[in-house]
Amino acid sequence: MTAKLPSTAQHLSDKEIFAAHEGGKLSISSTRPLETMHDLSLAYTPGVATVCEAIAADPEVARTYTGIGNTVAIISDGTAVLGLGNIGPKAALPVMEGKAQLFSSFAGLKAIPIVLDVHGVDELVETIAAMAPSFGAINLEDISAPRCFEVEKKLIQRLDIPVMHDDQHGTAVVILAALRNSIALLGRKMEDLNIVISGAGAAGVAAVEMLLNAGAQDIVVLDSRGVIQADRGNLTPVKATLAAKTNPRNVSGGVDEALTGADVYIGVSGGSISEESLRLMAPQPILFSLANPVPEIDPELAQRYGAIVATGRSDLPNQINNVLAFPGIFHGALAAKAKTITPEMKLAASQAIADIAAENLDIGHIVPSPLDPRVAPAVSAAVRATAEAQRA
Amino acid sequence: MTAKLPSTAQHLSDKEIFAAHEGGKLSISSTRPLETMHDLSLAYTPGVATVCEAIAADPEVARTYTGIGNTVAIISDGTAVLGLGNIGPKAALPVMEGKAQLFSSFAGLKAIPIVLDVHGVDELVETIAAMAPSFGAINLEDISAPRCFEVEKKLIQRLDIPVMHDDQHGTAVVILAALRNSIALLGRKMEDLNIVISGAGAAGVAAVEMLLNAGAQDIVVLDSRGVIQADRGNLTPVKATLAAKTNPRNVSGGVDEALTGADVYIGVSGGSISEESLRLMAPQPILFSLANPVPEIDPELAQRYGAIVATGRSDLPNQINNVLAFPGIFHGALAAKAKTITPEMKLAASQAIADIAAENLDIGHIVPSPLDPRVAPAVSAAVRATAEAQRA
Repeated sequence: MTAKLPSTAQHLSDKEIFAAHEGGKLSISSTRPLETMHDLSLAYTPGVATVCEAIAADPEVARTYTGIGNTVAIISDGTAVLGLGNIGPKAALPVMEGKAQLFSSFAGLKAIPIVLDVHGVDELVETIAAMAPSFGAINLEDISAPRCFEVEKKLIQRLDIPVMHDDQHGTAVVILAALRNSIALLGRKMEDLNIVISGAGAAGVAAVEMLLNAGAQDIVVLDSRGVIQADRGNLTPVKATLAAKTNPRNVSGGVDEALTGADVYIGVSGGSISEESLRLMAPQPILFSLANPVPEIDPELAQRYGAIVATGRSDLPNQINNVLAFPGIFHGALAAKAKTITPEMKLAASQAIADIAAENLDIGHIVPSPLDPRVAPAVSAAVRATAEAQRA
Repeated sequence: MTAKLPSTAQHLSDKEIFAAHEGGKLSISSTRPLETMHDLSLAYTPGVATVCEAIAADPEVARTYTGIGNTVAIISDGTAVLGLGNIGPKAALPVMEGKAQLFSSFAGLKAIPIVLDVHGVDELVETIAAMAPSFGAINLEDISAPRCFEVEKKLIQRLDIPVMHDDQHGTAVVILAALRNSIALLGRKMEDLNIVISGAGAAGVAAVEMLLNAGAQDIVVLDSRGVIQADRGNLTPVKATLAAKTNPRNVSGGVDEALTGADVYIGVSGGSISEESLRLMAPQPILFSLANPVPEIDPELAQRYGAIVATGRSDLPNQINNVLAFPGIFHGALAAKAKTITPEMKLAASQAIADIAAENLDIGHIVPSPLDPRVAPAVSAAVRATAEAQRA
């Protein structure tokens, strides 16, 4: 049935896609003219030595007198790229450049795309930690689960700059914003919801964490083997932790057992949900099927069964797009000189996104447009205020 | 006596230096507007996937459809920064940003400053090799000797993109250009010169190599212990190689023994040469004292004794500044899609620099001004032509 839907990609010709990539998608240039010996002497030798010495004496001044105060590295090993999977570092570079364009266009941040030809957790951690003094913050991107969890955790422990794996937290922040506005529209409460999250990868794990932090009480998580529960055996450490935090009714089985009576379905895994399964849900369910380009629930079916529907697609209403989150989150964290991005900062980002859509809330408008220029400044301000309050 | 000279640095106020660094010295932005959903779809999902797949199928197309075709990483571990020494990665960042400004301003290249918080040879090699798919070429910078030699050598062997330690080769290329024009003015021949190079660090070792490649026959190298010769004992591997390639007259002793009868003095070490030592040289010597800001030979003395004098200072004639070399070398190597920078490419770069100054040759103009806009394009063209001829 999905074949009937217009795919956004079908509207783009290869010719215009390649033209939009020719020569790369970023420009890097000097902020000041270098036209005279005086210009050269200020920017390079001998003037630059004065700034080097100031930073050697007090590393904090590097935030002011180098680019790091507003520079984010976008770092990937190319193992989990979009819907393409493990295509390797070089083939992942266009995505990192595209993300850098978004950082620049939406938040005025300088972003540097870095792709790495190492893949072990420790190698990734060592390599990224080694280059960390070059940046103000690190956006991990498209690193496959479960390595992404450990890489992010170890880097957060080790570095004194913000590190965030956007496939986890950026997505989770926007999911929570969309869910908050959905239940506001439908007059429901977070703590009353039976929520099914399909997918225990980067986005699924982070969504569980965010929704629990936002007050959700009953989340059932599905992976390719069915419902995650402590009794299932052979759980990876990540899934054992999920089992401990979720599934309070101790549901076991597969998709149908999970969906029976559920109020919310959040798909971040791909796969497909049948009409029969949808009928098992509670009346008027909230359906977020975010796999891209083919949503887990056929959009026509979702429209028929769901009270509110969201997808990851730009050609349908309610696009869950993490560009709503990451530019503002990193901008706010850098503005606050935060050393880490806390759960509270992510909750604040989510609320800021929800609040903007709430100004004209509608079942077809539970999140702002990805192009809404109000979003990044609002998210940044909320994140910064939270960071400063937490430090104070 | 040097205290009498105006120091360039003295003409710069701290206030204007810091103002020239505020917020960093580079801007990074999108080459194309991201204003519509169509723009977003081309640059990011879903359009970007088409480009990722093309690169996965043929990595060479990354030169065209990502920025790497004209992107140079400037990588340092902060151990040998300007005259400041081992100030660490973060304090070295302003120098790398300054160098990136030069790449942009003189050759239109995108340069990314990366400073590394690892310092062992193998750690540096592994870290840099891991991130290499992100760049089209690598400019190693301000890594202390002797590690710089081994790091560069191992990376050249391992990577299929150009890698050059500029403190070695950029400086050596400009020294050779200056020496070629000096002997043209004085009617001497490279193979007849007795040359003393004071300093067996990055610049000294590379200068020996370049001058030998250009036909020099008699080079005596000084380090802090005196003349390097095979009999001296306790030579590091790098110095043992130097001893084997230089000092055909088997000179032993110190500065005075080296300078006795010498036609050329090239100082790249710091320290100081007395008037008495200068008197030991052959008549009308060529004196390049390149330590910065305090040249090894007091400029007044050099003027009195030397037929031709060069320094590293921008406020004196004949500044040996490697900005004459590196922008064009990397530009030409990238344009030729070269996998390495060969000795022949460096010799071609040197000749191109010499040729431009030769258009109005004078003892006060043996190298072009660092601001001469003809230099980088001429160097690039010469390097590219040589690379293409070598591949053909």
